[in-house]
Amino acid sequence: MNVGFIGLGSVGAAMSRNLTKAGHDLIVYNRTRSRAEEMQSLGARVADTVSEAAFGVEVLITMLADDRAVQEVIFEPGRAIESLSERSVHISMSTISVDLSRRLAKSHAEKDQNYIAAPVFGRPEAAAAGKLFILSAGPSEPIEKCRCLFASMGQKTFMINEDAPAANLIKLCGNFLTTTVIESLAEGFALMRKAGVDPRKFLEVLTESMFSAPVYKTYGEMIAANKFEPAGFKLPLGFKDNRLLQAAAEEASVPMPMASLMHDRFVAALAQGLGNADWSAIAQVTYKSAGL
Amino acid sequence: MNVGFIGLGSVGAAMSRNLTKAGHDLIVYNRTRSRAEEMQSLGARVADTVSEAAFGVEVLITMLADDRAVQEVIFEPGRAIESLSERSVHISMSTISVDLSRRLAKSHAEKDQNYIAAPVFGRPEAAAAGKLFILSAGPSEPIEKCRCLFASMGQKTFMINEDAPAANLIKLCGNFLTTTVIESLAEGFALMRKAGVDPRKFLEVLTESMFSAPVYKTYGEMIAANKFEPAGFKLPLGFKDNRLLQAAAEEASVPMPMASLMHDRFVAALAQGLGNADWSAIAQVTYKSAGL
Amino acid sequence: MNVGFIGLGSVGAAMSRNLTKAGHDLIVYNRTRSRAEEMQSLGARVADTVSEAAFGVEVLITMLADDRAVQEVIFEPGRAIESLSERSVHISMSTISVDLSRRLAKSHAEKDQNYIAAPVFGRPEAAAAGKLFILSAGPSEPIEKCRCLFASMGQKTFMINEDAPAANLIKLCGNFLTTTVIESLAEGFALMRKAGVDPRKFLEVLTESMFSAPVYKTYGEMIAANKFEPAGFKLPLGFKDNRLLQAAAEEASVPMPMASLMHDRFVAALAQGLGNADWSAIAQVTYKSAGL
Amino acid sequence: MNVGFIGLGSVGAAMSRNLTKAGHDLIVYNRTRSRAEEMQSLGARVADTVSEAAFGVEVLITMLADDRAVQEVIFEPGRAIESLSERSVHISMSTISVDLSRRLAKSHAEKDQNYIAAPVFGRPEAAAAGKLFILSAGPSEPIEKCRCLFASMGQKTFMINEDAPAANLIKLCGNFLTTTVIESLAEGFALMRKAGVDPRKFLEVLTESMFSAPVYKTYGEMIAANKFEPAGFKLPLGFKDNRLLQAAAEEASVPMPMASLMHDRFVAALAQGLGNADWSAIAQVTYKSAGL
Repeated sequence: MNVGFIGLGSVGAAMSRNLTKAGHDLIVYNRTRSRAEEMQSLGARVADTVSEAAFGVEVLITMLADDRAVQEVIFEPGRAIESLSERSVHISMSTISVDLSRRLAKSHAEKDQNYIAAPVFGRPEAAAAGKLFILSAGPSEPIEKCRCLFASMGQKTFMINEDAPAANLIKLCGNFLTTTVIESLAEGFALMRKAGVDPRKFLEVLTESMFSAPVYKTYGEMIAANKFEPAGFKLPLGFKDNRLLQAAAEEASVPMPMASLMHDRFVAALAQGLGNADWSAIAQVTYKSAGL
Repeated sequence: MNVGFIGLGSVGAAMSRNLTKAGHDLIVYNRTRSRAEEMQSLGARVADTVSEAAFGVEVLITMLADDRAVQEVIFEPGRAIESLSERSVHISMSTISVDLSRRLAKSHAEKDQNYIAAPVFGRPEAAAAGKLFILSAGPSEPIEKCRCLFASMGQKTFMINEDAPAANLIKLCGNFLTTTVIESLAEGFALMRKAGVDPRKFLEVLTESMFSAPVYKTYGEMIAANKFEPAGFKLPLGFKDNRLLQAAAEEASVPMPMASLMHDRFVAALAQGLGNADWSAIAQVTYKSAGL
Repeated sequence: MNVGFIGLGSVGAAMSRNLTKAGHDLIVYNRTRSRAEEMQSLGARVADTVSEAAFGVEVLITMLADDRAVQEVIFEPGRAIESLSERSVHISMSTISVDLSRRLAKSHAEKDQNYIAAPVFGRPEAAAAGKLFILSAGPSEPIEKCRCLFASMGQKTFMINEDAPAANLIKLCGNFLTTTVIESLAEGFALMRKAGVDPRKFLEVLTESMFSAPVYKTYGEMIAANKFEPAGFKLPLGFKDNRLLQAAAEEASVPMPMASLMHDRFVAALAQGLGNADWSAIAQVTYKSAGL
Repeated sequence: MNVGFIGLGSVGAAMSRNLTKAGHDLIVYNRTRSRAEEMQSLGARVADTVSEAAFGVEVLITMLADDRAVQEVIFEPGRAIESLSERSVHISMSTISVDLSRRLAKSHAEKDQNYIAAPVFGRPEAAAAGKLFILSAGPSEPIEKCRCLFASMGQKTFMINEDAPAANLIKLCGNFLTTTVIESLAEGFALMRKAGVDPRKFLEVLTESMFSAPVYKTYGEMIAANKFEPAGFKLPLGFKDNRLLQAAAEEASVPMPMASLMHDRFVAALAQGLGNADWSAIAQVTYKSAGL
């Protein structure tokens, strides 16, 4: 397919590489142009402007850092929404707010464009291996049409429902659950360490019995090793997702004390200088509070 | 082997049945004698007293509700520790405090008896199917000798280390992690419900991606169904384990804010009349606080 | 003095009445005009527009519900900042964000206008009696000039420092402390009630010993009576202030777990239908969680 | 009156001095005898044993560190309850559990002895100045008889009710409220410090307006100065009181999230080496978590 791709961070770059390898015709844009140029050798064209990346494509994929970046790219004067043709599809794969997703759905509909929310689970390694989990929501026909794209990027695509923002809510809530796993492991490991039991023994028991899931294995290893750099997913991005979740919870009037605890952990982590670490470094706040 | 078995609650009864079926020679004791008599048809003998169940056996297994029950059975005048012979083995499979486990290790050692801590993960169904996960810690030779017993009761036996109380600490900490899973799911599901997204769709995404572990499947189903009776593991027992964990954390000077949050949830659940429900009914406290 | 006054809610109306009684020459504006007209009998003039209320006055006082209202009144086209003359003074007495106060300071300075932040402590009764506590911050000369105005509205005016937003931060933090008093009393009273001790006896002990402050007396009475309507200060406004505090704390990277707890209480209160009650009705969330 | 006095810590020593000065005839006992001997110059007799201090006195006052100390002194073989005569009065002024107070009430009643619970608010300086606040509960006639004693030790004596443990509950709950004041001030001061506002200015505003109570003045000064030694009330004792409160709350099924937060603060403070500091040093945990 004829695809525009905006946003070549570590996950976005891997995704666009996999799309190119699968034979799709890509035109890529990145604010820092050098990252886009790396894609040229694989056959992608480089757009000079957002508008160029959106112009005439069947599908525009955005994979950007936050709400502000998406708003800039889509809504600002001379930006994507004006260049996309009728019946084209915008797949927003960034982790953005439920509120912005709602606004995108509305704005694209007004222009007879299709909007799909398709945020992903997976760290850069998973993206590189085409092993992302993709949560797609929106009108079913365009989603059907884009299945081959999803298949090039992920190991599995979930069909949430026809209401695009539902995928964003599930994504944010999944990230919230990941932070609770990090914190619970950090508290447990701190106890093991101070009681003289090897945290890795505890982790082995967990991951070979009731807790045999990737999220425990991946983060358990990092927290047991107490090593959080280089970052696969930077702490300030994790904090941003926590804020978006809290905003959705406030809007729906749902008190979430665990989300509040995670909020406090993120703030403390930044106060303690962990802004460049992986988001799992919130475990260090827990360790330090225990005198470790 | 020649085995005394004390404590025929729903899990203990299943374990003793599996031992009998595997050909071991059991003498069983239960405070409410009728539950012991049910074992007679399977070939077990019924002891009239704790002392009789412990006298002359190679291995004594205890599977009781709490510290007090274990203390009564083992330490009170005329009780098991006096009837066990030298070199016999006491396998304590109950979920008890680290502190009591330490005291048992010491007391049995003074009498030249062997002490193994072997708490289990698994609800009654798992016990019936011989699918428990067993965490064994203590001196390696007796553990080796008891492997065939563990094999009859569980699908996997972990060797923690030679310090028996380490198994109890890991067990308590595993239960703590389970409570955090329950609470995080409850908060997430409350948000889904109020935002109009089917919690089961969210659960499907979780358990087929990063959170593909039994603990999410088992409790996710219960919390999505908002149905917590009949109880597989009663709420007050879960609260007891939370207290034992907090005691261990206090002793080691490890602040565990998530454990404190769970403490508050258990207290609220009891205040709201959920004392007969499964421990996952703490989710209802979360639901109610959100006005659901 | 020649004073424009915008915002005649229950506190603002009382303040403007006291200014008029003290002989100041007021021109008042309120979105709902009828509330402004009530002031006419006291000698105040009624402005048809914000601009009219700001035009030519020596001092403009704003006492509005939230950031949005202040922004609209001051910054929107045809609004106050354009009508105020050079060297006039804007006294912002609303409880607004530190961030907006910073922006006001900057914008007024660019127009050679003076900006004073002077938020207040005190419920409507205190405002009526001229017993507010006023926290003033900003350039000292204009503050000196406005002392007579403050004296007509409050029992005491604090001079914070020359940086206007400092007064807003202190105000928000004072409101935060008030919420912690409400919650701590609610938890204590819940315990007294369930243990069969009269909460009023506990309150008497507190307020006649170490806790002999108005904040304990005022809220203690309300929480003991479990009566939160009519509202002196509506719960959603208290929640707004909690949010503004959390924003300031995030900006400064200060984890405030008590502020997070209060956040959760406000969300729960709204979920449980307490949006029209006094902000101290967060105590009912605590009562309900205890099964009361 | 003829008074036995057991427990000469910093507060107990000051209390017994004031009783002696007021003309009462004291016989004092302290585990570390040297502290008792200091009382001889003031005219008190020194008892060699607990039993001697209790024998034949009209009133026995105990002022000890914790439940265990009180239990030892009163209940162990050869201890006070056996030496006290019928109709004598035991005034328990220590901060003990509601549960132990209940047990004391019952045991003294069985021996036809009177039991009054009369815990106090006040730090050592207040005790020295005879300015304690005394919370008395129990049978009214003996309390009436002991009024002159209370008057020598405190500035005010509250009559709670006829159920002695009620005084202990109120005392524990008062200490809980004090910890919430410490934490709320610490969070607020951390924010002020990082935002460049002098915490003492904030404290001045508080204590001269809505928060004009001794508890804010005393602890506000200490937390602003960030100086927590020498300890007026040691942190581990404050933690003990937190535990006793949580036990009472558990028994009554009252979830108290603020008490849980304070629990975590105490554990963190001990983990961070603050065991010899004043209990208000929990503020340092808050400061450190903010990177201060």
